[in-house]
Amino acid sequence: MPSRDNRSPSELRKIALEPGIAPNAQGSVLCSFGSTRVICAASIEDTVPRWMKEQGVQGGWLTAEYSMLPYSTLSRKTRDATRGKIDGRSTEIQRLIGRSLRAAVDLSAIGSRTIWIDCDVLQADGGTRTASITGACVAVELALRALVNQGKLSRLPMKRRVAAVSVGIVDGEPRLDLDYLEDRDASVDMNLVMTDKSEYVEVQGSGEEAVFTDAELTAMLDLGRQGIQSLLSIQNQLLSA
Amino acid sequence: MPSRDNRSPSELRKIALEPGIAPNAQGSVLCSFGSTRVICAASIEDTVPRWMKEQGVQGGWLTAEYSMLPYSTLSRKTRDATRGKIDGRSTEIQRLIGRSLRAAVDLSAIGSRTIWIDCDVLQADGGTRTASITGACVAVELALRALVNQGKLSRLPMKRRVAAVSVGIVDGEPRLDLDYLEDRDASVDMNLVMTDKSEYVEVQGSGEEAVFTDAELTAMLDLGRQGIQSLLSIQNQLLSA
Amino acid sequence: MPSRDNRSPSELRKIALEPGIAPNAQGSVLCSFGSTRVICAASIEDTVPRWMKEQGVQGGWLTAEYSMLPYSTLSRKTRDATRGKIDGRSTEIQRLIGRSLRAAVDLSAIGSRTIWIDCDVLQADGGTRTASITGACVAVELALRALVNQGKLSRLPMKRRVAAVSVGIVDGEPRLDLDYLEDRDASVDMNLVMTDKSEYVEVQGSGEEAVFTDAELTAMLDLGRQGIQSLLSIQNQLLSA
Amino acid sequence: MPSRDNRSPSELRKIALEPGIAPNAQGSVLCSFGSTRVICAASIEDTVPRWMKEQGVQGGWLTAEYSMLPYSTLSRKTRDATRGKIDGRSTEIQRLIGRSLRAAVDLSAIGSRTIWIDCDVLQADGGTRTASITGACVAVELALRALVNQGKLSRLPMKRRVAAVSVGIVDGEPRLDLDYLEDRDASVDMNLVMTDKSEYVEVQGSGEEAVFTDAELTAMLDLGRQGIQSLLSIQNQLLSA
Amino acid sequence: MPSRDNRSPSELRKIALEPGIAPNAQGSVLCSFGSTRVICAASIEDTVPRWMKEQGVQGGWLTAEYSMLPYSTLSRKTRDATRGKIDGRSTEIQRLIGRSLRAAVDLSAIGSRTIWIDCDVLQADGGTRTASITGACVAVELALRALVNQGKLSRLPMKRRVAAVSVGIVDGEPRLDLDYLEDRDASVDMNLVMTDKSEYVEVQGSGEEAVFTDAELTAMLDLGRQGIQSLLSIQNQLLSA
Amino acid sequence: MPSRDNRSPSELRKIALEPGIAPNAQGSVLCSFGSTRVICAASIEDTVPRWMKEQGVQGGWLTAEYSMLPYSTLSRKTRDATRGKIDGRSTEIQRLIGRSLRAAVDLSAIGSRTIWIDCDVLQADGGTRTASITGACVAVELALRALVNQGKLSRLPMKRRVAAVSVGIVDGEPRLDLDYLEDRDASVDMNLVMTDKSEYVEVQGSGEEAVFTDAELTAMLDLGRQGIQSLLSIQNQLLSA
Repeated sequence: MPSRDNRSPSELRKIALEPGIAPNAQGSVLCSFGSTRVICAASIEDTVPRWMKEQGVQGGWLTAEYSMLPYSTLSRKTRDATRGKIDGRSTEIQRLIGRSLRAAVDLSAIGSRTIWIDCDVLQADGGTRTASITGACVAVELALRALVNQGKLSRLPMKRRVAAVSVGIVDGEPRLDLDYLEDRDASVDMNLVMTDKSEYVEVQGSGEEAVFTDAELTAMLDLGRQGIQSLLSIQNQLLSA
Repeated sequence: MPSRDNRSPSELRKIALEPGIAPNAQGSVLCSFGSTRVICAASIEDTVPRWMKEQGVQGGWLTAEYSMLPYSTLSRKTRDATRGKIDGRSTEIQRLIGRSLRAAVDLSAIGSRTIWIDCDVLQADGGTRTASITGACVAVELALRALVNQGKLSRLPMKRRVAAVSVGIVDGEPRLDLDYLEDRDASVDMNLVMTDKSEYVEVQGSGEEAVFTDAELTAMLDLGRQGIQSLLSIQNQLLSA
Repeated sequence: MPSRDNRSPSELRKIALEPGIAPNAQGSVLCSFGSTRVICAASIEDTVPRWMKEQGVQGGWLTAEYSMLPYSTLSRKTRDATRGKIDGRSTEIQRLIGRSLRAAVDLSAIGSRTIWIDCDVLQADGGTRTASITGACVAVELALRALVNQGKLSRLPMKRRVAAVSVGIVDGEPRLDLDYLEDRDASVDMNLVMTDKSEYVEVQGSGEEAVFTDAELTAMLDLGRQGIQSLLSIQNQLLSA
Repeated sequence: MPSRDNRSPSELRKIALEPGIAPNAQGSVLCSFGSTRVICAASIEDTVPRWMKEQGVQGGWLTAEYSMLPYSTLSRKTRDATRGKIDGRSTEIQRLIGRSLRAAVDLSAIGSRTIWIDCDVLQADGGTRTASITGACVAVELALRALVNQGKLSRLPMKRRVAAVSVGIVDGEPRLDLDYLEDRDASVDMNLVMTDKSEYVEVQGSGEEAVFTDAELTAMLDLGRQGIQSLLSIQNQLLSA
Repeated sequence: MPSRDNRSPSELRKIALEPGIAPNAQGSVLCSFGSTRVICAASIEDTVPRWMKEQGVQGGWLTAEYSMLPYSTLSRKTRDATRGKIDGRSTEIQRLIGRSLRAAVDLSAIGSRTIWIDCDVLQADGGTRTASITGACVAVELALRALVNQGKLSRLPMKRRVAAVSVGIVDGEPRLDLDYLEDRDASVDMNLVMTDKSEYVEVQGSGEEAVFTDAELTAMLDLGRQGIQSLLSIQNQLLSA
Repeated sequence: MPSRDNRSPSELRKIALEPGIAPNAQGSVLCSFGSTRVICAASIEDTVPRWMKEQGVQGGWLTAEYSMLPYSTLSRKTRDATRGKIDGRSTEIQRLIGRSLRAAVDLSAIGSRTIWIDCDVLQADGGTRTASITGACVAVELALRALVNQGKLSRLPMKRRVAAVSVGIVDGEPRLDLDYLEDRDASVDMNLVMTDKSEYVEVQGSGEEAVFTDAELTAMLDLGRQGIQSLLSIQNQLLSA
C-alpha cells in the first residue's frame, strides 16, 4: 500500500492559512494543504462585466482565475501566456472555483462590483483545486470585510462559508485529501465542495478510466464530509481571531 | 410548476439513435434526446499522440471534441474558430466525453491508433453533453466493429458500454433528463455517466449558485440510474440489430 | 479516362434539397450534390455590423461562414477552432458565398438586420462550394419568407435567385459538376455562379498549375450555364411547393 | 463618366519595372502600374515544406505572401501583425499570386528548394494584385537566373511568363487597368492572368453585388488579352536587356 | 581586426535621406546608413487612443511600429503576421522609436491627433534602429509641416530634433556606426539617441554576455556624440532646403 | 519635494533575500526592495533549445520569464494568458533579465542544460526589474550549487555575480532605488546592471519624454555604482552563510 506520511485514511494533511501574502489585494491568504501551497487573492473592481450591463442584471459578479506557477511542479511547467492559451484542466478548475464562491457570496448585495479571485499555485502536491477553494473563501471574506470597514458596504454579504477536499479510492481503500502520489495511483478521484451547513455545492467524482460502485461513492462522501468540517473549523479560527 | 411536455418526472424524452449520419467516419450516429440532436462521429487514425511516442506508452488513445453548430441555438452562436478559441464550457464537455469513453474502450487492445470522437450539436434543447456521450458510445462501437470486420482487430475492444443522463431539482422536485427550460430553472444540475453494470463513471453535481442536501443527492442518483438503464437498452437495440 | 459513375459529361450528379435540417435557424436545407452533403442555414440577427453603424450605411448586411466538419473527409480534418484560425481555402469560399448571396438579396429592403449564412460540410466529395451556394440561396429565401410571414417584412426582398456549379477539363474533355476524383485529376477547374436570368455573378477559373485556351473557356461556360439552369429548376420545385 | 487621366478605355496606365529594389533577395523589382507601386521580391530557400518531405514529393515549391504596407493607403491601414492575423482579401490575393507563378515555373526542375515571393504594396491605387503578379514573374526569373549563374541550376526552369491585368465595366463601358476610383465605381471587376502564348492561367470575374452578361464577359476578356500582351512585352524589354 | 570598408573608427557610413518614398503618408523618407535602408513614414490620424479619451488626457499621441521586411536579410525572415505575433526584439525597437520621437514632438500642441510612425527595413546591415529613429524624425517633421501648410496647426510643434547612432567595442577598439559584421563581433553594443542640444534621450548599452568598464563607456559616449552631430547636420540639410 | 520615506537620496530601500520560496525549483528566493517583492526561481532542464541543436552550438542556455501577478498592483492587472500575449514592457524586462544572467553564468560549463529563470512580482512598488535581476542571480547560484552537490557539475560555473538598481532624477535631484511614486515623477529613469568587479553589464537610461545632460548621467552612474556594491554585499551574506 502506498505510503501516506503516517496519516490515517481519514486524516487531513497539515492545513495552514496565512493572511496578507499579497498586500495589494483587498484580501489574500497563502493556503497550504501539506506541501501544496496556493496564493489566494481577492481583488475588488468597481465595475461589472459588459454582459451584465447589456442585460441590465443588477448586483455584482465574482469570477476566478487559476494558474500553476511554472516552478510549482518538479519539472518546470510552461506558462499559459507563453503557450498563448489556458489549458483545459486550468479552465475547468477556475470555473469550479468561480461557481463555488458564487454560492458563498450574496452577489445581489455587493453593488456594481466584480470580485476577482486569483489562485496561483506556488507548490503543487495534489489537491490544488481544493486548497484554492478553501483559501479563496477566506480571501473573499477578508476582502468583503475591508469593504465593510471602509463603509462601502453596510453588512458582510456572505451567504455561507465553503470549503473543499479531495477523496479517492487507493488500493481499494477510501482516503481523504490525497497527495500527488496517491492521486496518481487512485482508481477513483472525487472533489467535494460543501458548506458550513453540510450542504453540497459541488460533487465531482470521476473514475478516470475506471468505474466505482454506489458503496464506494457513499464511503467517499462520508470521508469528505468529515474533512470539510475540519477545514471549516480552521477557516473559522482565522476569521474569528 | 414548469411544464414538461407531459412527461413524468422520471421519464426520458423521446430518444433516437440513427446510424450513418456521417458516412466518411468509421462510425457515426445522430443521437436525439427530444429536440436535442447531436451528430456523433468516431474516426480512427493510424497514429498516436506525440506524448505517447515520447513516453513509450503502448496501445492507443481516444480523444473527443465537442462543438455547438452556430445555428443550434435560437440566437446564433459565434463559431469557436471565429473567436479563435474554444470556450470554457465546451472544453469541460469534451474532456468529460473523452474520459467517459476511455472508460468504455480497452485502449491497450486497439493498437497504435487514435479514436477521435466528434460531437457537433445540430439542435440544442438541454442535455447536449449527455446525448453526446450516449451517442458517442454507439459511434465508437460501430467504428471498432468496422476495424474487426476489416481484420485490423481480432476482437471488439469494448470493456463496457456507457450512457449519460442529466438529473436536477426543479421547483423542489427531482426530475430526469431536463430540457433547456427546466435546466435554466433547476436549482441543482447533475450529470451522470454510468455503465451497463450500474457502476459510476462520472458524477458531476453542481448547485450552481445554490446548494443541495444529501437526500436530494440520493434522489437524483436513483432517478439517473433508472434513466441510464433505459438508454443502455436503446443502445443495445441498435447494436444488436 | 476516369470513371464518372455513368454520368455523361454534361450531366449533374443527383441533386437533393431537404429543408428543415436545422430547425433553430430561420431557414435551413441539407443540400446534396451526389455524395457531397452540406448543411446550409440562414439565421437573422436584428443588428448590423459596427462598420455599418459607424459609416451610417442604411439597410442590412449578409455574411457567410463555411466549414468542413472534421468527419466530412476520408481522413479526419483538424477543426479550425483547434488550429485557432480559418485556413485560406475556407476564407476564400466563405467570401465567395457571401458575395454570391449579396447579389441575390436586396439588402436595402431587409431593415437593420444581418443574415448569417452557415455552410457546414457533412460529407465532402467535390463541389462543396457550389453545393453551399445553391443550398444557401434556398435557406436564405426560406428565412426571408419567415420574416414576411411574421409581418416583419412587407415583401420578399429577393432580387434574383442564384445557383453554382463546377466545370472542368478532365483528360481533355469538358465536364460538368466534378466529384472529388475528377476534381483532383482536372487540368482546369472553374466555378460558376449564375442567376435565373442567365447572368454571371462569379466566374472563377484556374488552371492551377496548368493553363487553358479560349475554346476551353467557352466550352466550360456553355456546360456550366446548362447545369445552373437545372439547379435553378430544382430550387424552384422546392420553393414553389 | 468618371475621369480616367486622359487614357482611352483600352489603354494601360504608365507601367514601370525597376530591378534591384531589395538587394538581399535573389531577385526583386519595384513594379508600378500608374500610382500603384509594389515591391516584388523572390527569395530562394534551400529546403521544401514539411508536407512535401512527408509525402515524398520530389522537386521544389513556390509560395507567395502579399501585404499592404500601412502607409500605402490614404488613411493608414493597421498591420496584419498587429491584428494578429492576415485578412481574407490578402489571403485570397497571396493564394492567387502563388497559383499564377506556379504555372510559370517548372518546379520539378528547381531541386529541393522553395521560392518565396513577397509582394509589399508601397502605394495603392487599384490593381495591386495584378501589379504584384506582373512584377513577381520578373523577380522570379531574375532569381532563377542568379541560380543558373551560380551554377546551382543547369538551365532556366521557366515554363512560360505570366502577367496580369484588371478589367471592368464602368458606366456601362468596358475598361482596362482600373485605378482605385474606377474600381470603386465599377459594376463588374475582373482579374486576368495570362501567358505569353495567350493562354489563361486565372479568370476571376465578380459582379460583387451586381451581375454581368455574356457579351460583357467577352468584351472584358478581349480588352484584358490586349493589355496582357503589352505587359509581357514590357517584361521582355527588361529581361532581354 | 575586422575590415570596416576603409572607414576610420569614428566615421559614419554613407548617410542618405530621400523624401517622398511613400506618397500616401503625410511625411516619408528612405533613410540609408550604408547598406542599411529603412522606409520611415509618418501618418496622421485625427483621433487619439481610447485610453487618452477615457482618462481625459488632452493633446495628441505618437506611436511607432517597426518591422523587418522578409527580404531585408540574407536569409528570408518569416513575417510577424505569419507567426501571429511581433517578436521581442521588434517590440523593444518600436518602443524605443516611440519614446525617442515623443521627446521630439510637443504632443500638447498637435490637437486630438495620433502620429503613427512606421519603420520598415528594406535592407538590413546593422543599425536598423538608429536609422529608423534618424529617418523618423525627418518624416515626422515633414508630416507636421504639411499640417501647418494645410492650416491645421498654427506653428510647427517640434520641441527639438533627435538622431541616433550605434557605438561599440570591436577588438578592443571603440567604433562608431557598426555594420552587421562589426555588430556581430562587438563585445559591447550601445545605442544612443541625442538631441540637437547634445542632451541624451536614450542611452542603451549592453555587454550582451560580456561586460564593459567606465573608461569604455566614456569612449563610446564621446564617439556617439560626434556621430549624432553629423546626423543632425544631414537632417538639417534636407529640412532647410 | 516628493517624500521618500526618510531615506537619503543615495540610500537603498530595505533589501531582503529569503531563500526557498519555491521548493520545487532547484534554486529560489523571495527578493524584496522595500514593498516591491518578487519570487525569483531557477529551474534546470536537461535539454537545450532546438536552435542550439540545429546549429550545433555546444554548452547550455539560460532564459528568463517575467510576469506581474494580477494582484501585485493596486488595481488588478489582467493576466497575460487571458490577453493571449505578453505585453511589450514584460518582453523587454525578461530579455534584460536573460542577458544580465547570461553575463553571470559560464554557459559553456553547464552541459546540455537550460536554466529557466522565472520572476513573478508578488507586490509592485517600483524597481521590479532590478529586484528581479538581483534575486535571480541568487536563485541561479543556488540552483547551480545544487547541481554541484548532486555531482552533476564538477565546479560552480559562475563567471561573476550581478546585481541591478534603478536611479533617476526627481525634482532635479539624483536618487537611488526609486519607489513607484518617485518613478512616476522622475524626469529621467535609468537601470544599471553591474558586476562584483564594478563593470557594467547593462546601462539603460531614458528621458521618457524628457532629456538629460552628461552631468546628470555621471551623477546617476555614481549613485548606481554605490547601490550595486551594497546589493552585492547583501547577496554575499546569504550565499556565504
